[in-house]
Amino acid sequence: MSSEYDIFIKNAQILTMNKEMEIIDKGFILVKNSKIVEIGSMTDLTKKHDTKEEIDAKDKLVIPGFVNSHNHFAMTLFRGIADDLPLKDWLTNYIWPLEGNLEKNDCYIGTMLAAIEMVQGGTTTACDMYFHETEVFEALERIGFRGVLGHGMLDFGNEEKRKNEVTETKNLINLVKNKAKLCSVIISPHAPNTCSVELLLEAKKLSEDFNLPLQIHLAETEKEVEEIKSIYNVTPTQHLQNIGFLCKELVAAHCIWLNQEDYRLIKQNDVKIAHNPTSNLKLGSGILNFNQYKNHDILLALGTDGPSSNNNLSMIEELRLACYIHKGVNRNTEILPAEEAIKMATINGAKALGLQDEIGSLEKGKKADIAIINKKTPNVYPPHNPYSMIAYAMNDSNIKTTIINGKIIMNERKFKTVDVSKTLIDVKEAIIQLLDRANLEQFKDKIRFLK
Amino acid sequence: MSSEYDIFIKNAQILTMNKEMEIIDKGFILVKNSKIVEIGSMTDLTKKHDTKEEIDAKDKLVIPGFVNSHNHFAMTLFRGIADDLPLKDWLTNYIWPLEGNLEKNDCYIGTMLAAIEMVQGGTTTACDMYFHETEVFEALERIGFRGVLGHGMLDFGNEEKRKNEVTETKNLINLVKNKAKLCSVIISPHAPNTCSVELLLEAKKLSEDFNLPLQIHLAETEKEVEEIKSIYNVTPTQHLQNIGFLCKELVAAHCIWLNQEDYRLIKQNDVKIAHNPTSNLKLGSGILNFNQYKNHDILLALGTDGPSSNNNLSMIEELRLACYIHKGVNRNTEILPAEEAIKMATINGAKALGLQDEIGSLEKGKKADIAIINKKTPNVYPPHNPYSMIAYAMNDSNIKTTIINGKIIMNERKFKTVDVSKTLIDVKEAIIQLLDRANLEQFKDKIRFLK
Repeated sequence: MSSEYDIFIKNAQILTMNKEMEIIDKGFILVKNSKIVEIGSMTDLTKKHDTKEEIDAKDKLVIPGFVNSHNHFAMTLFRGIADDLPLKDWLTNYIWPLEGNLEKNDCYIGTMLAAIEMVQGGTTTACDMYFHETEVFEALERIGFRGVLGHGMLDFGNEEKRKNEVTETKNLINLVKNKAKLCSVIISPHAPNTCSVELLLEAKKLSEDFNLPLQIHLAETEKEVEEIKSIYNVTPTQHLQNIGFLCKELVAAHCIWLNQEDYRLIKQNDVKIAHNPTSNLKLGSGILNFNQYKNHDILLALGTDGPSSNNNLSMIEELRLACYIHKGVNRNTEILPAEEAIKMATINGAKALGLQDEIGSLEKGKKADIAIINKKTPNVYPPHNPYSMIAYAMNDSNIKTTIINGKIIMNERKFKTVDVSKTLIDVKEAIIQLLDRANLEQFKDKIRFLK
Repeated sequence: MSSEYDIFIKNAQILTMNKEMEIIDKGFILVKNSKIVEIGSMTDLTKKHDTKEEIDAKDKLVIPGFVNSHNHFAMTLFRGIADDLPLKDWLTNYIWPLEGNLEKNDCYIGTMLAAIEMVQGGTTTACDMYFHETEVFEALERIGFRGVLGHGMLDFGNEEKRKNEVTETKNLINLVKNKAKLCSVIISPHAPNTCSVELLLEAKKLSEDFNLPLQIHLAETEKEVEEIKSIYNVTPTQHLQNIGFLCKELVAAHCIWLNQEDYRLIKQNDVKIAHNPTSNLKLGSGILNFNQYKNHDILLALGTDGPSSNNNLSMIEELRLACYIHKGVNRNTEILPAEEAIKMATINGAKALGLQDEIGSLEKGKKADIAIINKKTPNVYPPHNPYSMIAYAMNDSNIKTTIINGKIIMNERKFKTVDVSKTLIDVKEAIIQLLDRANLEQFKDKIRFLK
């Protein structure tokens, strides 16, 4: 006889992150067929439930899994390979030559590593923009991670390249349509200064035709704004508006260098923003003007960006840095409270990716994407306030259990769907071969880990 | 027959943090009677050593323990109890009323918790400024943590209070002189706007008479500068210079609001700075002008500040935030490279506290204060560059072993000198009693962890 429920979480402090920001101090969650079918206070539990798995969450905090709204998964392979360099040097002499040598298997392995790290940090959904997305898809479906995948399209005005990029995206749409259990597609033109108007319009049409979200890098650097202005005589945001690209399905990453008209256009078109504070600071790109976004009531989600410009995929560090940088720059302790930052990392991420009916909060009927945090450990103790604990004290290692789509992926930090040690061995092998193929003089002295 | 050595660490990648910033890719360290007696490459090991403890550090990174140059240990008890508030509200309505009810045992328990967290994060030395330092001393000596302890003195111009504060400090000096195995004293007047000139001068004299370092909060907020200017018609730094307080033994914490003359005076007197980026951002105090310090060649150490304005004691998060904030604000990726930030958190901290001949780097003859980091774990893998790994990827949980004064305090994250679970129980009990004594209406709804 089969069990009535798949998972029963009991005795938990639950941050629902629902509209009312309800906190249940001693609560339970019942999961069945990938979904939350019951959630409430322990006192409302009247009968004993027949479940496959039971998790006693005494001294634990239960939250919706984090949603990482901007990432380039397979760049895990380049973690720390070239830091503290001017952006142009970093890209031209290190990242691009390496990416030019990336093969399918590298993206598979790099994505496996990214998904493992994200699950370890309580992230259950993440948005990718990179190459070899077939392999990215395979890695995530194997682990059981909810990926929103985009083949990064850029043509620099080259028509043949444009056709190839669009074909790649269509292939990904087909693959996901036929095979996906968890993953979905996001149409992903790279940036206004790397994509022709034709490509941007094709991307927009794909988004409309297939009813899919759309992402782009926008106004990340001052240089990008200058470039677009020199060609189109308007800002990148206005350029996108002029060609009819801005829409409510769009997630625009970074968006640091905007003027008043740009903010107005973003709001008017209900564009969502993937804010990446670590990457913006680490690469010296600039600091997003939080006050402007607040005043214009624009939705901000959070992303780590790729692990080569970060160098980790911790959403906890990301939301913490958002709190610190905006408080500090504005000398205002109230500008971004802990609970607002946690919203950015959960429900706002879901909204940005068009998944707000599925994920981002713990509510009856939503997918069971859940992270369970240990509150009884020195670095967060005493846990006077659960929001403060997440935003200002804990680190990724305090995540004990991660559930995605009603399936326990990691419990007590042990993975159920993947061999972590084997993945690290595969990563090392992939890097040895990649560096061998690339054969770049600039890495000869820099790579110490193979010694 | 006794062993020749106490600890033998082998097969380690070692960041010495010595003057030459030497990295030993496959090295060893031999420890005896609290000190490093040999350090070098495995290939130079000619004979088998007879040691009590042997640590195979294959796939590990060995670094000098971190030095936290500014802290208020027992504020662990207030972690997350009141966040996202204006500074004045936070202090007046939450922190001060709680501190007014702190008893000796609270400071003992709070310090135990702080030391456990610091050891878990690879910190081996930290500087305190707080109350009930006898109990702070007892807690640290029991755990085996290298504390530099100061009774925070403030008199607001009250002569009786001044006398009491000086007596407390003298008592601490006596206690440490007679009983200390590890801890030392730092003379600790609180701030220019909370101490009379008489108290500042008595503090300076204590520092000279007993040959002890000296610490103070300085130019933390714009308001402090205004206050001092309104009384003395000069900046806080110039006020301290005018009374003859500035000296090379002084560690000044924060130092955000300085003018050109202030920087000149700091440099001229060889004052050391405890930079606390997290606290400064989280409390909206401001952002230290890193370029000015660099241009004036002033020594910057790093501190977490108290765990109520942070809310953790991670030196890794602290040095990371220093890298990010200064790169971001200055839009300069090269301004503070990873290795410079790690210097701030190790050897510069030692220099700030006058302990540079004892700790801060891994060198023959120095105290064996050592942290061992696991490099073979997803969140830091691949560890292409050890400095980058520390500064941008790892978190406190990647610290596997912490050695202080030649003694293993934590190994594989298990403590040898303290019962962590028991400490958490003691913390909870202390807080229940403290909140009961304080009986403050403003905490009634805020404290969720006792529910």
